[in-house]
Amino acid sequence: MSEQLGITVKKEENFSEWYTQVIQKSELADYSPVKGCMVIKPYGYAIWENIQKIFDSWLKETGVKNAYFPMFIPEALLKKEAEHFEGFTPEVAWITKGGDRDLEEKLAVRPTSETIMYSIFSEWIRSHRDLPLRINQWCNVVRWETKATKLFLRTREFLWQEGHTVHATKEEAEEEVMLRLKQYKKLVEEYLAIPVIDGKKSEGEKFAGALFTTTLESLMSDKKALQMGTSHHLGQHFSKAFEIKFLDKDSKEKYAWQTSWGISTRLIGALVMVHSDNKGLVLPPKIAPLQIVIIPIGAEKTKSVINKAREVKRKLERHYSVETDEREEYTPGWKFNYWELKGVPIRIEIGPKDVENKKLTIFRRDLNTKQSIDEKSFEREIKNLIENIQKNLFEKARKFLDENTFEVNTYEGFKELIEKGGFIKAKWCGEIDCEKKIKEDTTATVRVIPFKQENIKGRCVFCERDAKIIAYFAKSY
Amino acid sequence: MSEQLGITVKKEENFSEWYTQVIQKSELADYSPVKGCMVIKPYGYAIWENIQKIFDSWLKETGVKNAYFPMFIPEALLKKEAEHFEGFTPEVAWITKGGDRDLEEKLAVRPTSETIMYSIFSEWIRSHRDLPLRINQWCNVVRWETKATKLFLRTREFLWQEGHTVHATKEEAEEEVMLRLKQYKKLVEEYLAIPVIDGKKSEGEKFAGALFTTTLESLMSDKKALQMGTSHHLGQHFSKAFEIKFLDKDSKEKYAWQTSWGISTRLIGALVMVHSDNKGLVLPPKIAPLQIVIIPIGAEKTKSVINKAREVKRKLERHYSVETDEREEYTPGWKFNYWELKGVPIRIEIGPKDVENKKLTIFRRDLNTKQSIDEKSFEREIKNLIENIQKNLFEKARKFLDENTFEVNTYEGFKELIEKGGFIKAKWCGEIDCEKKIKEDTTATVRVIPFKQENIKGRCVFCERDAKIIAYFAKSY
Repeated sequence: MSEQLGITVKKEENFSEWYTQVIQKSELADYSPVKGCMVIKPYGYAIWENIQKIFDSWLKETGVKNAYFPMFIPEALLKKEAEHFEGFTPEVAWITKGGDRDLEEKLAVRPTSETIMYSIFSEWIRSHRDLPLRINQWCNVVRWETKATKLFLRTREFLWQEGHTVHATKEEAEEEVMLRLKQYKKLVEEYLAIPVIDGKKSEGEKFAGALFTTTLESLMSDKKALQMGTSHHLGQHFSKAFEIKFLDKDSKEKYAWQTSWGISTRLIGALVMVHSDNKGLVLPPKIAPLQIVIIPIGAEKTKSVINKAREVKRKLERHYSVETDEREEYTPGWKFNYWELKGVPIRIEIGPKDVENKKLTIFRRDLNTKQSIDEKSFEREIKNLIENIQKNLFEKARKFLDENTFEVNTYEGFKELIEKGGFIKAKWCGEIDCEKKIKEDTTATVRVIPFKQENIKGRCVFCERDAKIIAYFAKSY
Repeated sequence: MSEQLGITVKKEENFSEWYTQVIQKSELADYSPVKGCMVIKPYGYAIWENIQKIFDSWLKETGVKNAYFPMFIPEALLKKEAEHFEGFTPEVAWITKGGDRDLEEKLAVRPTSETIMYSIFSEWIRSHRDLPLRINQWCNVVRWETKATKLFLRTREFLWQEGHTVHATKEEAEEEVMLRLKQYKKLVEEYLAIPVIDGKKSEGEKFAGALFTTTLESLMSDKKALQMGTSHHLGQHFSKAFEIKFLDKDSKEKYAWQTSWGISTRLIGALVMVHSDNKGLVLPPKIAPLQIVIIPIGAEKTKSVINKAREVKRKLERHYSVETDEREEYTPGWKFNYWELKGVPIRIEIGPKDVENKKLTIFRRDLNTKQSIDEKSFEREIKNLIENIQKNLFEKARKFLDENTFEVNTYEGFKELIEKGGFIKAKWCGEIDCEKKIKEDTTATVRVIPFKQENIKGRCVFCERDAKIIAYFAKSY
């Protein structure tokens, strides 16, 4: 099995092929007969359900309500906010026929729902009493990618959550933008164990139609950057296009201020790229569909092994998701490989000797190490181990991020380092023409302008105008 | 407000307009700028989330795993099972353009996912060890309706769950069909408080591509029938079209046996049509997003009223969803109307006299009656009341169903009664030509052939051939 089902390429040698194999062989997802679209398999979908469960509870605690809006957007609506339309139109899928009849107006399949939601919000909002309005939608969206499909990262259809809020003031909208970004950061760092750099997007990289975009960027282990989540301040761009007005306390009619923010199934791709290894998937315990697997060894000869395995399971399943793999048609070795490939954080092996000595053999997937623990303290040990694995994965990724973030002052240095991968932290003029030239020249983009700005004084790394900001540049997905 | 926001037509006088008003004014859903599509508003979506939460847990307990498959189905795939294609093709929405390029092959937006899922299942299944396979998907589906939109009942896009299973034997697939129908029945009767008749569909009404279809039918209060959920035995129709084969224990390659089953957001429409009244929505406590609302009265003068209201809330929210409506800009009378319109099962009114006398005034929405209860036993009283309201709504609907189910033996009697509405229980030959003629003649269809068959002997109510079954006929949504 290990040859047939195991990963056959090394992460260091062919990252792209390794990534695809890990996803396919650990059964997270697969290609489909529909060009550009993927199937999210039960194991992958269970990770998405965990993300949903955690994040949805935070949304509800902070005043957000879920709803559902039509997936189809008439062309005229999509066009209402000019910058937005221009940004999305190259990748829109269009419905032109219903049954055997041509439609009078073609319908876009939502690439994002600002336009359809806001045309409806304008009817819901009349007074300051109707504000703030906080709506979220878990749904599928479609962007007609023309480049090669990359599972979880670039598919024509994907799943996401899109939050949309409406406020009476610019400041309140800004607080909302920051609150959601903070919730994303907590999710990504504390649950997915992936460190991020939070900040703003440049003019060239912001959301089509936004006043400004905030983002979380992180570094994959091939040293390319990945955007993990974004939260946009939409200003009054859309409220003016969609006539979202309210009667304020001072009896004046005003345009509202808006935000939108989202995370998607690409987070699962990030989990793979950051933590996994040449044996397969590695999952942080807090997000793993299965946290612990118990493998009875030699059970066909020693009945007490199965009993012990089940007893351990009963105790652990009060706090964790646990399975006992009692399949008789596979050897323990096969099972070890199987569950390692699937990235289960902890494996407990129980053989006749373990039963006899009142011990449990524990394998931790993050370090691929084994240890023997006393049965009587195993519940506390497992608790510590779960915490420790979660922490270790984050710290390892943090270290990698730090070691691959470079400060440079000259464009020569920039060009040399950018080819090696990682983030380049540099002084920058902040101008869109400069950003474009760097991209043309190196394919790298401004990933994030961190909130924490220091030592800006000096010249732009590219154009030598006065630097106005510190920015992180990288090649990215 | 009661004039502006209240329901302005009577259920008895204009059922259709009443239905739409209840949904719009209680804020369950509304029309959208997209023809044929609706917006599910937060209050309506919360009911769907409750249905999802309950049903999803039952699915997981019985071996079903959630996954996600592409929404787009290439035309060639959709055509593979001929009967299925013929059944769905008149109502398929087609994607023909991506960005500004015409697609080589047009793509259907899923009207249901048999074809896309099964083309993939055929790759997942090799051996009897891979069976049974049980997959469920919560998603949106599209059927290009040409008749007028009816909120929750007939919209071009709706939300549902579709379960798809694969088995080694016909019998095991049949057990699965019945298990899922039983789970639907439990959901609909015990949670939605809607009594159903369970049985099989006739040849003319079964799912396109099924061996047979089982169904739950119920009666709305305008005496039209509504299908609440269906569970299909697909036989080997699809496994032969999609080459879903497995190596059985006897080393022979065999075609698999399949089932599919679904419920949708139309269940919310049924909730409205069965329980609601001329004051607005009435919701069974087990499915209501908000079970109890507390209205403090005269709180501006008596501080103890708010304290009491909050104390009562704290105690109740351990077991129920509860809100205290402390809004100062509305009168208690306005609030009563508002929450009655929204169908909250129990209202607790707390005024200065209640506080003084250690009493609580309780309003139950199902009967629209008030009573005063002792504060010291209120938790037990509320518990009883919740159970009692749930039971009362079901029994009232059960009585309505029974009183509007008529047995007839002659076609003259059939035609007379069918115009009055309700179910007609009649002896029937079971032939498709006969079923077609009855439909042409009366617009009524065979809704369900109940599992419980008795006293079949006699002649078909229409064609006078020998009766083979007892069937329920009705006009339906």
